[in-house]
Amino acid sequence: MNFCNQCGSTVSHKIPEGDTIARYVCDRCETIHYQNPRIIAGCIAEWQDRILLCKRAIEPRHGLWTLPAGFMENGETCVEGAARETHEEANAQLSDITLFCMFSIPHISQVYMIYRGQLVDGKAHPGSESLETALFNESSIPWDKLAFPVMTETLKLYFSDRCSGQFGVHNGEIVRNTDQAFRVNIY
Amino acid sequence: MNFCNQCGSTVSHKIPEGDTIARYVCDRCETIHYQNPRIIAGCIAEWQDRILLCKRAIEPRHGLWTLPAGFMENGETCVEGAARETHEEANAQLSDITLFCMFSIPHISQVYMIYRGQLVDGKAHPGSESLETALFNESSIPWDKLAFPVMTETLKLYFSDRCSGQFGVHNGEIVRNTDQAFRVNIY
Repeated sequence: MNFCNQCGSTVSHKIPEGDTIARYVCDRCETIHYQNPRIIAGCIAEWQDRILLCKRAIEPRHGLWTLPAGFMENGETCVEGAARETHEEANAQLSDITLFCMFSIPHISQVYMIYRGQLVDGKAHPGSESLETALFNESSIPWDKLAFPVMTETLKLYFSDRCSGQFGVHNGEIVRNTDQAFRVNIY
Repeated sequence: MNFCNQCGSTVSHKIPEGDTIARYVCDRCETIHYQNPRIIAGCIAEWQDRILLCKRAIEPRHGLWTLPAGFMENGETCVEGAARETHEEANAQLSDITLFCMFSIPHISQVYMIYRGQLVDGKAHPGSESLETALFNESSIPWDKLAFPVMTETLKLYFSDRCSGQFGVHNGEIVRNTDQAFRVNIY
């Protein structure tokens, strides 16, 4: 950030009075420009014993598989965001949407909110951000071609719960260590 | 938003190519300035049969009672945010923090993530944003002096669960209708 989006003046990166964290502050109008984590809302869309994955048509991770998910928009609920992303990426309609897990990923300031939902008719086809959509059962999930660690962790939790016969609501973190490896905590 | 925070030029509010929602787009460098919901992380801090509330020393709702909660910061997890806010507003330390509920509030583009935690020593005293801190049991909660509807809904869920002997993880929405009344959905 170089300029104030209110008055167009330059900004300085400094700790405002009464605060403890450096923020971008306008040098003229003194507006404080807070920056906060963003939510990615997504869904595990179920059809009988299979779930829906999308092959990404966009970077990052072009050509790898993901649950339908994307940045939550202003003015919508998390459930609406999860349903909208599933429709945009896979032209699929959901019912019975319930919270399944959330993951904080602090090194990229993101929070994933992943729901479970039922495909209403089992149908899906790629939206503009997907090359391909497909339904997978547990044994056919392309584990080595998943786009993001959070998708791998979410699907591990999902199949573990499904095997146990009961779905919980999980709270987790994916933290990057100083050696660049990821540490996963599930509460 | 009036100016691009990257190059300082004016912005226009328009739908970018390939998008469906109007964004602020720089007239010169064409940076798209996305705006997304913010997360408020907070905690129900328990001590025996009582919970911690803070009387607000700041606007909005100065002088009314709230669970300790505030905007999640970049670089932290939701749990860290909930613990930090409890420390900042009530100088209280928590252990055993688990997810309790989330509420989407779309008309203000906020998502509340509320945890349960144990006060490690039962001690609390006001931080700079609080006039007072106190422990309340169910019968002494100041229901008519709570700062925000989301706090009322969270505490109703909490005491209902406590009465039933089992805590769930709840997903809800507080939606403002056209007549300005609030509608609460719990999934």
